[in-house]
Amino acid sequence: MSTTVTARPLKRAFNFNAGPAALPLAVLERIREELLDYRGTGMSVMELSHRSPEFEAINHAAEQNLRKLLAIPEEYAVIFMQGGGSTQFSCVPQNLVIAGKPVDVLHTGAWTAKAIGELKKGFAHNIAASMEGEKFTRVPRQEEIKFSADASYTYLCTNNTIEGTQYHAVPVSAAPIVADMSSDIASRPIDVSKFGLIFAGAQKNLGPSGVTVVIVRKDLAERADKNLPTMLQYRTYIKEKSLYNTPPTFAVYVLGLVTEWIAAEGGLPGIQKRNDAKAKLLYDTIDGSNGFYRCPVEKGSRSLMNVVFRIAGGDEAVEKDFGKGAAAANLVGTPGHRSVGGMRISLYNAVDQPAVEALVGYLKEFQRTRG
Amino acid sequence: MSTTVTARPLKRAFNFNAGPAALPLAVLERIREELLDYRGTGMSVMELSHRSPEFEAINHAAEQNLRKLLAIPEEYAVIFMQGGGSTQFSCVPQNLVIAGKPVDVLHTGAWTAKAIGELKKGFAHNIAASMEGEKFTRVPRQEEIKFSADASYTYLCTNNTIEGTQYHAVPVSAAPIVADMSSDIASRPIDVSKFGLIFAGAQKNLGPSGVTVVIVRKDLAERADKNLPTMLQYRTYIKEKSLYNTPPTFAVYVLGLVTEWIAAEGGLPGIQKRNDAKAKLLYDTIDGSNGFYRCPVEKGSRSLMNVVFRIAGGDEAVEKDFGKGAAAANLVGTPGHRSVGGMRISLYNAVDQPAVEALVGYLKEFQRTRG
Repeated sequence: MSTTVTARPLKRAFNFNAGPAALPLAVLERIREELLDYRGTGMSVMELSHRSPEFEAINHAAEQNLRKLLAIPEEYAVIFMQGGGSTQFSCVPQNLVIAGKPVDVLHTGAWTAKAIGELKKGFAHNIAASMEGEKFTRVPRQEEIKFSADASYTYLCTNNTIEGTQYHAVPVSAAPIVADMSSDIASRPIDVSKFGLIFAGAQKNLGPSGVTVVIVRKDLAERADKNLPTMLQYRTYIKEKSLYNTPPTFAVYVLGLVTEWIAAEGGLPGIQKRNDAKAKLLYDTIDGSNGFYRCPVEKGSRSLMNVVFRIAGGDEAVEKDFGKGAAAANLVGTPGHRSVGGMRISLYNAVDQPAVEALVGYLKEFQRTRG
Repeated sequence: MSTTVTARPLKRAFNFNAGPAALPLAVLERIREELLDYRGTGMSVMELSHRSPEFEAINHAAEQNLRKLLAIPEEYAVIFMQGGGSTQFSCVPQNLVIAGKPVDVLHTGAWTAKAIGELKKGFAHNIAASMEGEKFTRVPRQEEIKFSADASYTYLCTNNTIEGTQYHAVPVSAAPIVADMSSDIASRPIDVSKFGLIFAGAQKNLGPSGVTVVIVRKDLAERADKNLPTMLQYRTYIKEKSLYNTPPTFAVYVLGLVTEWIAAEGGLPGIQKRNDAKAKLLYDTIDGSNGFYRCPVEKGSRSLMNVVFRIAGGDEAVEKDFGKGAAAANLVGTPGHRSVGGMRISLYNAVDQPAVEALVGYLKEFQRTRG
């Protein structure tokens, strides 16, 4: 195994991956700088005991950074779990369903379909709204939602990565709202008090894969049967400050660095401004292409995080060429999800304006030669 | 955030942490070398899509490295999960218990106690042997084990980190053996065919925390009810090669590098030889101290991974001084688990002979001045 660090000019890709995704270069440089010796300990951060004061400080800072960024009220716990959003699809109903009270679901695409799949394993639920009839090209309007009289909670996905849709206002619901916010957490300010529980895999806007952020109103966490597996109960993580067992220490450390970086970039108002500008530039290019590029999503539901579009009326050969040419031009991750095809550009927090400008340049050049 | 890489002489700690624990320096240097640009991709390994050919190769190599090192037969799957051993304590019975057939448990300390705690939530079980009466100072002998006539499986923990005990032969059991091997996997050759399922958090001998290795006989994985949460079913990971959802990509990458390092060090026979020599040096020092240091574990059950001992008849003030002095001498992680006190030295694969020699030098000097 070579141990030589060779100095070479860095070819940095323009990374539009849907997650795991781009990380801020400053964060990566910081990780590299302290990788062999975490702040004078003589150990890598990966070698620290999770019971050491150094790691407890890392864990605490990661939580506090999120609390500050998202202005999380005191009655909410912020915990770090493992297993991603897919684990939460079953963990949420196991903890939060009250016997005899259904889960109201707003069905907006592939991710809510997976959540419904887990509810079908024994949890009463009601599809309070489904966008399937419109091929998931928008999120539901308030007046379309048919709430149950007495739901355990209302479930929704704030941003749908595959379909390219996003809620721009939180629906009003009498029952607590549980939100899968995996792909737009910390991309804009939100009012946490409108939610009962928020979960998010970190690998889009907050860090690497391997850690799941859960923000949960503490009283809701007490609904769970104490006979649930210990590692699936939110209260275990609340009581032990996410240190009941060995946490994914490195992922929590990187999440701490990324949240610190977001704060330095102006917090969520600053990040939102950047994200708005990035999305506007790309959507304007698509909309101004005389139909060569076409975004199928209704304007009021368009995602600022994942921009989906078809090329030349959905010509798959042309779309394939687009993706190939993009990769050759150092623009990574432009093909759409394998389940739907087309193109998808993810514009998470760490994707910067120059990356989007490079992409837009490529879109224009591709249209000039192939349009 | 500073982005300057300052050159400074590396003070490397002698790291005896119980996990997360020491990693090979060559692995850390490799991670640092390619942290900003994974092999010419222009991305950090953390920024790669888990669906990219680059990550699929990483995932495949990690699995193949384990297969080769442990000589894992074809009828076993090797999968990567999240949540650590504590998640497996409930995951195993949920997948492997057959209705009406109890779980036989060999109770050897704090970790089997936790596994029993999860079995108590609705799974019939039989404590086939318990070392509690002897304060867990040894593992059970074959003739002491009272097996059920018709068990779903036999459960044991091959190495008990807190009590400092380890099996040096696998008990013979008619039912498949499920082993928590978190703290001694890949520390010595084993015969995988003697087990039905092996699980291990990576953070001791295989890598960083955040990934759990599960080696499971494929037919046993088919016992699970398909109504179990998708993310808790072993068959999900088998079918999708651990890529059903976003895996902890960085942890899998590091596990791949560590297993590559083990292979380069002579594979498990080579590692075992090193581990035997390290443990012998430390136990000989303890046993030759005229009782100043005393290991409470019966010789035939002593762990080669975690060496526990008391000082001066268990004088807590002296033990505290020992730990403080050790830390000042750059010897990290010597105090015992908070639940039992005393001292504990973890000698996982990445702890090298010079580290143990430095520690033994400290033991002798401490005895000279305080004995």
